[in-house]
Amino acid sequence: MEDFHKRIAGLVLRVLALAATLTAAIIMGTSKESANFYALSFEVNYNDTPAFKYFVIVNAVVSVYSFLALFVPSKSSFWRLIVALDLLVTLMLTSCISAALAIAQVGKNGNSITRWLPICNQVPDYCDRVTIALAAGFAAAILYLMVLAASAHAALDEDDCC
Amino acid sequence: MEDFHKRIAGLVLRVLALAATLTAAIIMGTSKESANFYALSFEVNYNDTPAFKYFVIVNAVVSVYSFLALFVPSKSSFWRLIVALDLLVTLMLTSCISAALAIAQVGKNGNSITRWLPICNQVPDYCDRVTIALAAGFAAAILYLMVLAASAHAALDEDDCC
Repeated sequence: MEDFHKRIAGLVLRVLALAATLTAAIIMGTSKESANFYALSFEVNYNDTPAFKYFVIVNAVVSVYSFLALFVPSKSSFWRLIVALDLLVTLMLTSCISAALAIAQVGKNGNSITRWLPICNQVPDYCDRVTIALAAGFAAAILYLMVLAASAHAALDEDDCC
Repeated sequence: MEDFHKRIAGLVLRVLALAATLTAAIIMGTSKESANFYALSFEVNYNDTPAFKYFVIVNAVVSVYSFLALFVPSKSSFWRLIVALDLLVTLMLTSCISAALAIAQVGKNGNSITRWLPICNQVPDYCDRVTIALAAGFAAAILYLMVLAASAHAALDEDDCC
């Protein structure tokens, strides 16, 4: 019975993580805004910033993996592989949220020494969408840390039992 | 005898990781260069870029941790805690190298849409030092992934034996 509850908790965490990565990928992937700056007109798009593109790709790939991992049976010899993949996914999410956050910080505050101007005054809606996507990505990374702990436990139980 | 070899391999990995994080922190932490750009004179310094400051802090903290972890005895009840800390360190290293790499990419290539100009032509020595620090940080992250695998194995062995 306790095993059953653990299994359900693990599945709930994975579904929440899937929702978070899917939200992050979709919101960042549909972020664009046009703006006029003096005589110049320009359109910003997640696709122009390598760190944001990386963020969308990682969150999309992790969404697919999270969906597939829901169907791994609880008594499976795959659990060690699942732990390794969950670790890889946690590292990938940590990496993409950190890279995107570093760029978003420059977009918001600029950098006076390198003379990179902040752009959020010109494209506030774009910046709001990026912020929401980053929050969802951050939630996904935290959730995956919990998924990793749960699957490591499951793998240890499997080891103990056989 | 096999345990002894595993222990030595674990220690060697930790010493190599310590060397990598220390190199990364020192090289990034001493990166600065002055340049003239038309009539403007400016000095770039790792300290002006939050992502580079984060990189130096994480690598310095991890260096201290790696040094202290060398003295944890092989038969210790701390191994589960060490695995958790090694995971945390691996995530921190992944995070700081990703953030620093995202900013370095803008420094090298700029971003035409947001009109952030590349700066490496003006401060080539600074960029070279940052590149070396990033390479050392990347090596440290890979080494810590191996340290994590070794300490997880040690914790499993401890579980099996008692």
